[in-house]
Amino acid sequence: MSDIVTFGETMLRLSPPDNERLETAAEFEVRAAGAESNVAIAADRLGATSTWLSKVPETALGRRVVGELRQHGIETDVVWSHRGRQGTYYLERAGKPRGTNVVYDRENAAITTAEAREFDLETIQNARVFFTTGITPALSPTLRETTLNLLKAAKQGGTTTAFDFNYRRKLWSPEEAEETLTKLFPGIDVLVIAARDARDVLGFEGDPRQLAHKLGSQYNFTTVIVTRGSDGAVGWHDGVVHEQDVYETETVSQIGTGDAFTGAFIARRLHGEDIPTALEYASATAALKRTIPGDVALVTKDEVDAVIAEGGTAVSR
Amino acid sequence: MSDIVTFGETMLRLSPPDNERLETAAEFEVRAAGAESNVAIAADRLGATSTWLSKVPETALGRRVVGELRQHGIETDVVWSHRGRQGTYYLERAGKPRGTNVVYDRENAAITTAEAREFDLETIQNARVFFTTGITPALSPTLRETTLNLLKAAKQGGTTTAFDFNYRRKLWSPEEAEETLTKLFPGIDVLVIAARDARDVLGFEGDPRQLAHKLGSQYNFTTVIVTRGSDGAVGWHDGVVHEQDVYETETVSQIGTGDAFTGAFIARRLHGEDIPTALEYASATAALKRTIPGDVALVTKDEVDAVIAEGGTAVSR
Amino acid sequence: MSDIVTFGETMLRLSPPDNERLETAAEFEVRAAGAESNVAIAADRLGATSTWLSKVPETALGRRVVGELRQHGIETDVVWSHRGRQGTYYLERAGKPRGTNVVYDRENAAITTAEAREFDLETIQNARVFFTTGITPALSPTLRETTLNLLKAAKQGGTTTAFDFNYRRKLWSPEEAEETLTKLFPGIDVLVIAARDARDVLGFEGDPRQLAHKLGSQYNFTTVIVTRGSDGAVGWHDGVVHEQDVYETETVSQIGTGDAFTGAFIARRLHGEDIPTALEYASATAALKRTIPGDVALVTKDEVDAVIAEGGTAVSR
Amino acid sequence: MSDIVTFGETMLRLSPPDNERLETAAEFEVRAAGAESNVAIAADRLGATSTWLSKVPETALGRRVVGELRQHGIETDVVWSHRGRQGTYYLERAGKPRGTNVVYDRENAAITTAEAREFDLETIQNARVFFTTGITPALSPTLRETTLNLLKAAKQGGTTTAFDFNYRRKLWSPEEAEETLTKLFPGIDVLVIAARDARDVLGFEGDPRQLAHKLGSQYNFTTVIVTRGSDGAVGWHDGVVHEQDVYETETVSQIGTGDAFTGAFIARRLHGEDIPTALEYASATAALKRTIPGDVALVTKDEVDAVIAEGGTAVSR
Amino acid sequence: MSDIVTFGETMLRLSPPDNERLETAAEFEVRAAGAESNVAIAADRLGATSTWLSKVPETALGRRVVGELRQHGIETDVVWSHRGRQGTYYLERAGKPRGTNVVYDRENAAITTAEAREFDLETIQNARVFFTTGITPALSPTLRETTLNLLKAAKQGGTTTAFDFNYRRKLWSPEEAEETLTKLFPGIDVLVIAARDARDVLGFEGDPRQLAHKLGSQYNFTTVIVTRGSDGAVGWHDGVVHEQDVYETETVSQIGTGDAFTGAFIARRLHGEDIPTALEYASATAALKRTIPGDVALVTKDEVDAVIAEGGTAVSR
Amino acid sequence: MSDIVTFGETMLRLSPPDNERLETAAEFEVRAAGAESNVAIAADRLGATSTWLSKVPETALGRRVVGELRQHGIETDVVWSHRGRQGTYYLERAGKPRGTNVVYDRENAAITTAEAREFDLETIQNARVFFTTGITPALSPTLRETTLNLLKAAKQGGTTTAFDFNYRRKLWSPEEAEETLTKLFPGIDVLVIAARDARDVLGFEGDPRQLAHKLGSQYNFTTVIVTRGSDGAVGWHDGVVHEQDVYETETVSQIGTGDAFTGAFIARRLHGEDIPTALEYASATAALKRTIPGDVALVTKDEVDAVIAEGGTAVSR
Ligand SMILES: [Ca+2]
Ligand SMILES: [Ca+2]
Ligand SMILES: [Ca+2]
Ligand SMILES: [Ca+2]
Ligand SMILES: [Ca+2]
Ligand SMILES: [Ca+2]
Ligand SMILES: [Ca+2]
Ligand SMILES: [Ca+2]
Ligand SMILES: [Ca+2]
Ligand SMILES: [Ca+2]
Ligand SMILES: [Ca+2]
Ligand SMILES: [Ca+2]
Ligand code: NI
Ligand code: NI
Ligand code: NI
Ligand code: NI
Ligand code: NI
Ligand code: NI
Ligand code: NI
Ligand code: NI
Ligand code: NI
Ligand code: NI
Ligand code: NI
Ligand code: NI
Ligand code: NI
Ligand code: NI
Ligand code: NI
Ligand code: NI
Ligand code: NI
Ligand code: NI
Repeated sequence: MSDIVTFGETMLRLSPPDNERLETAAEFEVRAAGAESNVAIAADRLGATSTWLSKVPETALGRRVVGELRQHGIETDVVWSHRGRQGTYYLERAGKPRGTNVVYDRENAAITTAEAREFDLETIQNARVFFTTGITPALSPTLRETTLNLLKAAKQGGTTTAFDFNYRRKLWSPEEAEETLTKLFPGIDVLVIAARDARDVLGFEGDPRQLAHKLGSQYNFTTVIVTRGSDGAVGWHDGVVHEQDVYETETVSQIGTGDAFTGAFIARRLHGEDIPTALEYASATAALKRTIPGDVALVTKDEVDAVIAEGGTAVSR
Repeated sequence: MSDIVTFGETMLRLSPPDNERLETAAEFEVRAAGAESNVAIAADRLGATSTWLSKVPETALGRRVVGELRQHGIETDVVWSHRGRQGTYYLERAGKPRGTNVVYDRENAAITTAEAREFDLETIQNARVFFTTGITPALSPTLRETTLNLLKAAKQGGTTTAFDFNYRRKLWSPEEAEETLTKLFPGIDVLVIAARDARDVLGFEGDPRQLAHKLGSQYNFTTVIVTRGSDGAVGWHDGVVHEQDVYETETVSQIGTGDAFTGAFIARRLHGEDIPTALEYASATAALKRTIPGDVALVTKDEVDAVIAEGGTAVSR
Repeated sequence: MSDIVTFGETMLRLSPPDNERLETAAEFEVRAAGAESNVAIAADRLGATSTWLSKVPETALGRRVVGELRQHGIETDVVWSHRGRQGTYYLERAGKPRGTNVVYDRENAAITTAEAREFDLETIQNARVFFTTGITPALSPTLRETTLNLLKAAKQGGTTTAFDFNYRRKLWSPEEAEETLTKLFPGIDVLVIAARDARDVLGFEGDPRQLAHKLGSQYNFTTVIVTRGSDGAVGWHDGVVHEQDVYETETVSQIGTGDAFTGAFIARRLHGEDIPTALEYASATAALKRTIPGDVALVTKDEVDAVIAEGGTAVSR
Repeated sequence: MSDIVTFGETMLRLSPPDNERLETAAEFEVRAAGAESNVAIAADRLGATSTWLSKVPETALGRRVVGELRQHGIETDVVWSHRGRQGTYYLERAGKPRGTNVVYDRENAAITTAEAREFDLETIQNARVFFTTGITPALSPTLRETTLNLLKAAKQGGTTTAFDFNYRRKLWSPEEAEETLTKLFPGIDVLVIAARDARDVLGFEGDPRQLAHKLGSQYNFTTVIVTRGSDGAVGWHDGVVHEQDVYETETVSQIGTGDAFTGAFIARRLHGEDIPTALEYASATAALKRTIPGDVALVTKDEVDAVIAEGGTAVSR
Repeated sequence: MSDIVTFGETMLRLSPPDNERLETAAEFEVRAAGAESNVAIAADRLGATSTWLSKVPETALGRRVVGELRQHGIETDVVWSHRGRQGTYYLERAGKPRGTNVVYDRENAAITTAEAREFDLETIQNARVFFTTGITPALSPTLRETTLNLLKAAKQGGTTTAFDFNYRRKLWSPEEAEETLTKLFPGIDVLVIAARDARDVLGFEGDPRQLAHKLGSQYNFTTVIVTRGSDGAVGWHDGVVHEQDVYETETVSQIGTGDAFTGAFIARRLHGEDIPTALEYASATAALKRTIPGDVALVTKDEVDAVIAEGGTAVSR
Repeated sequence: MSDIVTFGETMLRLSPPDNERLETAAEFEVRAAGAESNVAIAADRLGATSTWLSKVPETALGRRVVGELRQHGIETDVVWSHRGRQGTYYLERAGKPRGTNVVYDRENAAITTAEAREFDLETIQNARVFFTTGITPALSPTLRETTLNLLKAAKQGGTTTAFDFNYRRKLWSPEEAEETLTKLFPGIDVLVIAARDARDVLGFEGDPRQLAHKLGSQYNFTTVIVTRGSDGAVGWHDGVVHEQDVYETETVSQIGTGDAFTGAFIARRLHGEDIPTALEYASATAALKRTIPGDVALVTKDEVDAVIAEGGTAVSR
């Protein structure tokens, strides 16, 4: 029985060595990567226990994803499928002005056929938090229904629901996203959303403090976190807005920063800490994540505590 | 204007380092790989000029395939597509008793939508040989029609047509393959077929000599090559059957051996050599291919000549 | 609750790239490796559920070992220690006449201080099989006592006990091993032992059939497996001896072959199969292991079934 | 028939992994690298078609160079030689204060014997632009004559001639360079030159605007581009001087920046764009080049357009 | 007969690839690393001849350390031991806020048993300088005595003694270090010490100038160098204090910077240069070291001269 | 003062990863490789002390060669040159029927200008053996004279001279070799020669026993070793011929086998062993060499002793 259960797709991420191009690289590094498993891992690292729910193909590729997530410390509870592919994406990392680019190749993944009845809903109902993101319903009509049903099951079991809005323009239009995701809002307790998405997809206006307040009030969330990239985040709860800065970092990989933030936030809230403290842990975990290749926050709580205490970087020997 | 024009799909081949498993490898080697481009390259290396026709996605992955084929010396003439994926496959090489295994992930590739009208048919009609394989019509109903139309166009242009039967059980059933491929036979001059396929898919009986003779007679081919793995090949032409042994080899990668054989055979026939001589070149090229990682016969004609002359392996310094 | 619980040390194995020497290699491959975790993984892969018990340092190295074992599918239940090192060993693989050589650097490992009272004995008592090897008591006086106590706890809980004799001459003398290990025999149900060890350490004589019979009779084991390298194994049970040949294999890494054999044997026995069938699975799993780098049998039951059915190695595509 | 024909040496570039030293690195990365082929590739990527003319040894190394250039999209038209080496250079990249260092090993390369009569001059005369650099005549007395003759042939065919001054102090003295290269100036239409070379080799004075003006007036060029490293470039044409800034970039490899600039400038001029627009493309292509390992601007026109439009570096997914 | 003899432990340093974590990396880079051998190499590179004294296990790992140091140009004179391990340490490099971390695994190394009588003291007594650091006596009680005895032997032979204080908090407490190391001070001529250690371990106060003066006066050193990280160093000699700034550098690896500084300082002093000039060489060597992976200053005197002359970083070709 | 002094060229050897082709490999492995330094290392490993004499360019590449040889345990005494290249060669390893191929790029190496007066002849005259091979005089007319002069100096100093005939057909014709090398014979005590060279270059006839006898008698050598590849070697001395078989081996790299044989033979002769015993050591060292990548016999005497004792390959743990 885990503290947190997350549901979503985890892809195989294929990427050329440092700064090389997809067009000419002779080999690709392979890693499992997905927002919901990233959050599960970050939460686990910060003291919660986590289970990732999904549907994966019964192939070496599907087993690879599951094994890598288990290596990082979480439990997995997956439907093994004989239909559908293992989703992949190609990631080309680069600095300015080329920038990092993603080529998705995730259509017809096994998870796109996942229905709520395929999962043991007690896993969700016995957890303290159920988490998914706006990517999941973007993947197929079936998953839109499944996401709704799993959120409902969670509420019926008294499980808190948390949701990262995570709008992806390569998956659907802002209009589709808005229509689909706002229908899920009544079943959600904790919303995480980028200020950019609140503005561009949901049409809200104002600074992050105002966005958090408007979202919380309008949709009756218990907690709203509005993230704003290098400017930190704000957390709205009980009508109060708390601000959190980012920690200075030498970034190796920005992918997964938001997931590290969210996972740590949830874990420390579950541990009983107040919003400002949980935001501090979230921000420190996100900063450490940025020093680590891959999507995953392979940190320890001791390391996060040290960042909060000093942010120190002297060689320790 | 090339001597040979080939048409078919070239995939990205992803494979773990030596003997590692797809399930745990940290990186995959990447190579372009496809029967029809393999044949084009082998033919080019043995003295013909070659062009590969295809339809590929207008992405870094599509450009990668085209660039790698060009590197190996052939011309490419492709339709750049905004629909459809770049087909991939995962290759796990291993020795006995694990064996080498292939996981295809090639559905919905851009080429599956290719129609004859998208290509400049003069490219085919100005060539001396047009070549494709039984893999191409296995990929989609559209490609079945396209294959038929390109073979027709070739004949109308007076271009010799060559075809490797290449039955793939992971793509279709023997029954479907037989029904589809025998319909193409009237448009084909030169058939290459594995003895196993002649028996299991087409229902012929007898030893390779008999298979070649029966196929040639029944379908009115000008030339039939029946391959039989480590037992060599036989070539039927003008009612006569020639046998060709394999050269001893220390195999590094058996994938693409047949394509090397076929490409070299066609190139030397175009150069005016008789069937036994062309078979000898084909067999020597295939033997060299087996010493080279990847699908492609990166050989020189000098090297093939040396194998025929002596098969020598002393260090040359 | 797992079918099998194993107890022992898992080391970090550091090895130079193919055929390079420890003396000059610029990098070492790193893997977790230990007889008892190898057995747990092989059993898990063949259909049992497995848990590995151990004591590891609370460092990045200790976490590395645990994560890698989890990746391979088993559960871990470890005492995290602030005293003692992570044991390592350096492995230099080479062919004849150099041979593969091991440099142990495992003294003062955290596990050498492990006492029975540090573990939740119910984990063992709720399992169907408890397994350890003769390596464990060789590591420290404390571990000799602990091994005895865990075997006792298992018997008290009605758990079958299995033991691989695994004499290691770099750890102790034959005399010490004999004296220590025969004291454990009364608590052991299933013994696995190399014919060489039965002769050189225990002083038995005869062919493997005779060794199995003598050992079984003298010490009252329910089952005795005598392994004899490339000559296969014999299994003694209910007074009957069954012989099992090895499957032909192209060996990439012989390390862990015996552990793969033992793990598969136990898993299939638990699944209800008779001795000859379990031996067949054991031998096929061991053959597949030899095609895989590292110590671990990263196989699927489907693959093992295929080896038993045909041992086939044609490329499957 | 290509838009641009370039002529020059392309070397094998051997470089240790990141920041390692030539003195101790265990392996060298290998790439084809040469100013004239770099320019051909950059032009091709920006919409022109390009052919590279050269003379290379008929060895695996010579074929390697040709294959790699073809992979990057250009045509090659080379004289295969049985005399002369494949030129190489060793590149050790490093940051301040070590700096990047080049060890040339290019003496007696095959190209040093290339004479104009060995090439099909129609290739040049049918092109719209013929391009070479000041490196080529620095390589041998024969090449000084050949460069002159090829420039003459171009003019006779009505082909525009473009020339990058590219003074290399490891190849010859400023005095030799000045004497040789100014003799070529009457046959050149478009000159690209670093402000430093204009001052230190040709003895001009003034800021880049003045240098461009003086050079253009004195030698009757139609266009003069004066580059000034991180301060951008100026373009003189029809008596008017245009300035172009650099785009901000996170530099991975500065080698080839100037060639990317020049190739893109020529391609966009050929496409009909005016000097300021062509300079903008040139500068954006150069900025992208700096994010890519190796000498070559492996970019797409879409990427260059995006840099001009926004210079944006957010992750696109 | 060498100019400088150093004595101390050199470990095998195991480190994951760039920014990867010890917890998940699939391979570790291996290098020999130790303060006293680092100093010997830096001195050798700057024009002195150097010998490193130590005691190492007679294994492939011990031979590896010796071979790698010899590769870097110094002589080695070691006691080959059948007792004791090869010390290792795990180094995880990372940027802010993770920072670089060291996991020592060096207990029971062969050198911890080294006694003065095992070495040929004439090697020390024939040298011009004998050097060791505060790490050596921290490793074992035996080494405390040995360090004292070797320093005494040096003095008896008229050899100048130099000592880097090098306090390591992972090895001992400040109190132990102070008590042990100040006992060695009477036998030391040249002291190198970090300002931080002078304050935190020895309890001195003041700015680096004051620290140098107080240390020199109180303990009667001939020379005191106080280092202060990115703020440079000060050198006290004959009652005068000289300041030395750092050179700007793009740091790849800060480990070994201090050793590079010290080795270069000693070498140039031996060459007859005055304190300010020797400090300048020391600082330039340290700056170059920071651009080089590993612990060792693989520089040439020409490169150091160039840094002093210009600090230039333009590509040289 | 070393037991053995060898003189010759050591090249940088550049080779693609396993089985890859020079034409497409993305990286080359780099190693120092030369017959005379190989012999020095093998002799050193078998108990002699060795010094390698040569002339190398004063560049990072020259320092690389010297450092790598020092790493392997020998002393180096080189003339640092400002003229001449570092010789290189490209090695493409492959199995049958492709075979291993060498592309030399060694013309104009620094050593080709080496004259006897540049070396301290006492180094040779104080040694017990001076060794070079037939490669050295093949490199330049200057080196023919130098080889003669160094052999003379050795004789004058009472140093035994040993010589490996080592005919290289890519360097000179059999006629040139015969004429040049037989002129050196009067100054040579110990000749090592392949049976093939004795026949094809010197025109002798007969089986290896007869070749050894004829050569020894005709040219008045004290010892003649005739090697015959996989058939072992014969040693002629004092009118008696001894035969030596090869040890069975799994070959990873055959390059340098002969040098390992010769170095070990000389070392054991110097140690006082008789011809049959020295041949046994030579053959066992050669067998071990074949299991090691690169040209160099990185073995220990203990390992060679173990091969002679048992040739055993069981895993030792
Ligand atoms: Ca966990
Ligand atoms: Ca995210
Ligand atoms: Ca071609
Ligand atoms: Ca084929
Ligand atoms: Ca499992
Ligand atoms: Ca075992
Ligand atoms: Ca193009
Ligand atoms: Ca340039
Ligand atoms: Ca030195
Ligand atoms: Ca230091
Ligand atoms: Ca030595
Ligand atoms: Ca040799
Ligand atoms: Ni590359
Ligand atoms: Ni690699
Ligand atoms: Ni992982
Ligand atoms: Ni991972
Ligand atoms: Ni791995
Ligand atoms: Ni390739
Ligand atoms: Ni390629
Ligand atoms: Ni090496
Ligand atoms: Ni693993
Ligand atoms: Ni692993
Ligand atoms: Ni090294
Ligand atoms: Ni190195
Ligand atoms: Ni390239
Ligand atoms: Ni390339
Ligand atoms: Ni990883
Ligand atoms: Ni090194
Ligand atoms: Ni490649
Ligand atoms: Ni080496």
